[in-house]
Amino acid sequence: MENNFLDHVKKNGGLVHCITNYVTVNDCANIILGSGGSPIMADDVREVEEITSICNALVINIGTLNERTVTAMIKAGKKANTIANPIILDPVGVGASKLRTETGFQLLEEIKFSVIRGNSSEIKTLGKGSGTTKGVDADVSDSIDQKNIEEGLEFGMALSKKLGAVIAMTGEIDLVMDDSKAYVIRNGHAMMSKVTGTGCMLSALIGAYCGANPDDLLDATAMAVATMGLAGEIAYKKMVENSGGTGSFRTYLLDEISTMTTEKLKEGIKIETKTQ
Amino acid sequence: MENNFLDHVKKNGGLVHCITNYVTVNDCANIILGSGGSPIMADDVREVEEITSICNALVINIGTLNERTVTAMIKAGKKANTIANPIILDPVGVGASKLRTETGFQLLEEIKFSVIRGNSSEIKTLGKGSGTTKGVDADVSDSIDQKNIEEGLEFGMALSKKLGAVIAMTGEIDLVMDDSKAYVIRNGHAMMSKVTGTGCMLSALIGAYCGANPDDLLDATAMAVATMGLAGEIAYKKMVENSGGTGSFRTYLLDEISTMTTEKLKEGIKIETKTQ
Amino acid sequence: MENNFLDHVKKNGGLVHCITNYVTVNDCANIILGSGGSPIMADDVREVEEITSICNALVINIGTLNERTVTAMIKAGKKANTIANPIILDPVGVGASKLRTETGFQLLEEIKFSVIRGNSSEIKTLGKGSGTTKGVDADVSDSIDQKNIEEGLEFGMALSKKLGAVIAMTGEIDLVMDDSKAYVIRNGHAMMSKVTGTGCMLSALIGAYCGANPDDLLDATAMAVATMGLAGEIAYKKMVENSGGTGSFRTYLLDEISTMTTEKLKEGIKIETKTQ
Repeated sequence: MENNFLDHVKKNGGLVHCITNYVTVNDCANIILGSGGSPIMADDVREVEEITSICNALVINIGTLNERTVTAMIKAGKKANTIANPIILDPVGVGASKLRTETGFQLLEEIKFSVIRGNSSEIKTLGKGSGTTKGVDADVSDSIDQKNIEEGLEFGMALSKKLGAVIAMTGEIDLVMDDSKAYVIRNGHAMMSKVTGTGCMLSALIGAYCGANPDDLLDATAMAVATMGLAGEIAYKKMVENSGGTGSFRTYLLDEISTMTTEKLKEGIKIETKTQ
Repeated sequence: MENNFLDHVKKNGGLVHCITNYVTVNDCANIILGSGGSPIMADDVREVEEITSICNALVINIGTLNERTVTAMIKAGKKANTIANPIILDPVGVGASKLRTETGFQLLEEIKFSVIRGNSSEIKTLGKGSGTTKGVDADVSDSIDQKNIEEGLEFGMALSKKLGAVIAMTGEIDLVMDDSKAYVIRNGHAMMSKVTGTGCMLSALIGAYCGANPDDLLDATAMAVATMGLAGEIAYKKMVENSGGTGSFRTYLLDEISTMTTEKLKEGIKIETKTQ
Repeated sequence: MENNFLDHVKKNGGLVHCITNYVTVNDCANIILGSGGSPIMADDVREVEEITSICNALVINIGTLNERTVTAMIKAGKKANTIANPIILDPVGVGASKLRTETGFQLLEEIKFSVIRGNSSEIKTLGKGSGTTKGVDADVSDSIDQKNIEEGLEFGMALSKKLGAVIAMTGEIDLVMDDSKAYVIRNGHAMMSKVTGTGCMLSALIGAYCGANPDDLLDATAMAVATMGLAGEIAYKKMVENSGGTGSFRTYLLDEISTMTTEKLKEGIKIETKTQ
């Protein structure tokens, strides 16, 4: 895989429109800025079409969904579809409540997504129509490890075929796939699950990568996933060296995203290609 | 007092449902995660009952209340009561506006709270029906110091009896009490009032502690208060050593919460028991 | 210019009421606290008049405006006008959507602002009725550099005369002016544009400075702008020394605001006075 996706983000500095939750929105804005993109958060139904029209990508995250924002998501999504902007869905907590599950399916029906990123429980819920999401975290029974990679790939590739979207199922091992090709990515660190919003931040970063690399969404998504994972690994080392905790880890994670280079990524990436 | 409350949080990793303000929500999520719990922020009235049902505790914080979220708070609170989940109230700014005071009393009428944590002005407003809250900070005339501890205990224990809730009145000196027993806690540092949301974060932490220790809410609350205070003391030392300011202090505070151990707490806790 | 504005903030510790966006609200609260003031975020229409009445200044920021909050902004602004509290407007993204532009003009019509702080595209949009705002960042064609300072001053001073407000047009070079006097400030660092909310934080800081120095709003605004810029310069040096990135920079920025002194500011300030 060519490896200049990051340079494209830095050079093109694409605008990413985010309709996202109020818990992790600041981190999402900062990770987009850190990677070289430019975020704009706007969720009023009267402006979302116009805002999305001046952007290069749209990220929809249902972390703290409500009636007002879901209406805005649909309006923005339809508009982004008409101008062929990449749209990323982060179905936070799908499966944890009827509202989230129904909203997830409503969004899939009304909007054609380019990329869907979630944990294994969320992705399985979107694929099966029901799931075992435990709050906003993946259920242990769903998680992808060495033993069930093939099963995860099969599930994700079938879902990709059905929805026409790149599927990124992230966790201890990350799977990124379309209907004919998949990447297994082994970057990352368990500490990432101890800071809120690393999933949301990754979806925002995928928005920046896809906005700046619209012709190769599968590889752009895989590179964003690997970048986030590698940043987490390095941040963890720094945290240990400095006897820090989750507060320092979060700071270092943003540091590493903002100082990532194509060279560092080339050296640290742990990626395996699978084709059907 | 036994001292394994923290271990229970780490082991049980309880889910805490928070309906809270958008100012400090990220820090609240991160402190719950750092302590070993798992946060879920959800405030849409259509899902709060379902979400609270899969959780171990509910935290209601009126920091940026509005009509939509107050309705969700009441619905979630009533549900949590029916399944006997601990509910923590943080009555931010009660006394600073008619809306906040009325909402505080409405919540007390509709929901049976397990713990109420506020600064001295907020607690006094809930007890007396009127108060001198200065914005979201305690009025100097209300603050608890060496001279008026007994008065504070008497007030808090009477309020605890009336409401059937543990009362945590926090400030320079922290008082945690039910109607027959009280703890006076002298951990903490003044720098904590120079970072937004340390009160909200403490209420969230109490949610994690009570969710994982539902059979001993008084002691669980006292331990959360002492843990937060001790983390603040250590964070302040680190800040001074590194010539930092409030930004670094905030990071270190989360670091210390996430690396706290029963041993550290045992060594650093400054707690005194009072019984009536 | 006298230089005790910062001491007044620390001594008077003024309350600043903010109706602001949910992206950067935490940083806004923390910068006000760090400078010595006290923030209160409240946006429910039923309480904003009462809240603003107990405060020393009001900051209105339209970063994530919606119908509910715009109504609250207008109500709070009218009340603050009747009690002659300074009001600061941050017209985030004015020019990027019809809604933002119209809301900007509606606010100018309904409220008499004391200070308006924006990037050059936002200020030009408010002055001309249309603009080239690119998302929430200034368009390159609008930015103020060595070559077009005079043009910027002329534009800003005319706008100040029209609106009766201090105008702070910030970017690489910052211009702060009323209709007869202007300051050209050359503090700051480009890294500040790589962290979300440095503009919002500056507007919040101006709120604290104006609330504590109500008799000299022009100089108070200029001092807040210079303080923020100088903090950014020092934070950048610390970031480089510690091999950090945007995460560390953000932490150091808050550190420097909270440890700023009149002496440091006197030594580091790069300010030039212009009179018409």
